[in-house]
Amino acid sequence: MHQSSHTDSAMQACIETCTRCHQVCLQTAMNHCLETGGKHVEAEHFRLMMNCAEICQTSANFQLSSSRFQHRLHEVCAEICEACASDCKEIGDMDECVEACQACADSCRKMISAQH
Amino acid sequence: MHQSSHTDSAMQACIETCTRCHQVCLQTAMNHCLETGGKHVEAEHFRLMMNCAEICQTSANFQLSSSRFQHRLHEVCAEICEACASDCKEIGDMDECVEACQACADSCRKMISAQH
Amino acid sequence: MHQSSHTDSAMQACIETCTRCHQVCLQTAMNHCLETGGKHVEAEHFRLMMNCAEICQTSANFQLSSSRFQHRLHEVCAEICEACASDCKEIGDMDECVEACQACADSCRKMISAQH
Amino acid sequence: MHQSSHTDSAMQACIETCTRCHQVCLQTAMNHCLETGGKHVEAEHFRLMMNCAEICQTSANFQLSSSRFQHRLHEVCAEICEACASDCKEIGDMDECVEACQACADSCRKMISAQH
Repeated sequence: MHQSSHTDSAMQACIETCTRCHQVCLQTAMNHCLETGGKHVEAEHFRLMMNCAEICQTSANFQLSSSRFQHRLHEVCAEICEACASDCKEIGDMDECVEACQACADSCRKMISAQH
Repeated sequence: MHQSSHTDSAMQACIETCTRCHQVCLQTAMNHCLETGGKHVEAEHFRLMMNCAEICQTSANFQLSSSRFQHRLHEVCAEICEACASDCKEIGDMDECVEACQACADSCRKMISAQH
Repeated sequence: MHQSSHTDSAMQACIETCTRCHQVCLQTAMNHCLETGGKHVEAEHFRLMMNCAEICQTSANFQLSSSRFQHRLHEVCAEICEACASDCKEIGDMDECVEACQACADSCRKMISAQH
Repeated sequence: MHQSSHTDSAMQACIETCTRCHQVCLQTAMNHCLETGGKHVEAEHFRLMMNCAEICQTSANFQLSSSRFQHRLHEVCAEICEACASDCKEIGDMDECVEACQACADSCRKMISAQH
């Protein structure tokens, strides 16, 4: 049902990094950010965390369903994850989130370039 | 495909109130609450707003897919909407949210009692 | 909290067309398509219906949360809705779905061009 | 932010089983079931697979956000997972799905009993 087992294992790895990024962003926003307050609940930052969590979930779901539009999701997901990683780095004290967002962006970019 | 047109129109009305409650809670949390700050971004309140938005979305999706578990979702959705309406009333300045949550709880309760 | 009331009413209209397209695609796939069978449950068609339902939900949620990435979602959403409208037209007997997908694609395209 | 590290690790484990069940149900429905056809795309079975995928996602999200309603989700999630496991067992050739649904139901039930 897929082109090759290589494609399968690469996609499975990308599903895992998207899923981890969804989990880390949502859990961090709804616990660490809300409980710490201050710049952590500043509107632009908090929205970005929640948008990043949601696009990662959607990107994982598109891959799980073998969508022919999964590469369009990889692009948007990579872009939002990079913005979120950069925002979290600037705020500081959010290393787990920075790492999860960067890993997810890398993994999505790798899927896009593997397609060409 | 359903038991009766009465069932259909009642379910369609409930899908609409669940959808409206999802929209109002998410839009209010991510705009009014984040921009007003203070007690509006207090962890317990904000979580409840986001949980209410998500359960309403799931409840609408279960009805749209004619799930045989839709009444289980109606129960949980009604309970969370009532908690959210009460929390928003206490905080004040959230009339649209109170109204949308109460309408959704009422509509879910009506679906449960119609089943018996 | 937004640039203008014009922006607000245009976005609110787009949230409604995305929400309607999500509802029509999900409800049609999980009822009409599953119950009719045949080409309606052919893998590529059914996946497209479900992907269309999900991206419309995500696009609505990004607008509800005033995401600065909402125009990226408008692009992907318009593209998937157009593919779904075209697929449904070819299969036939899916007028409501064709109409909802085209309205959603138009509404997303209008939001993108209004931005420039 | 949580009562104890024991609670934390139990919840983290439950988040993982819910996430795995979401992934397995969605991936199986959108690939194996759609490509195999026959009883695999029979309306009641397919809806159950999709409903199971969605409630597991919602249950994981409620735990990730430390929702005080997470035990209500555990109950509904366990119930739907048990129905899905039983349905998949009857259809046959769905061992991975049966195992993922049973593990998720067990994990949700454990969280409920730990609360009392």
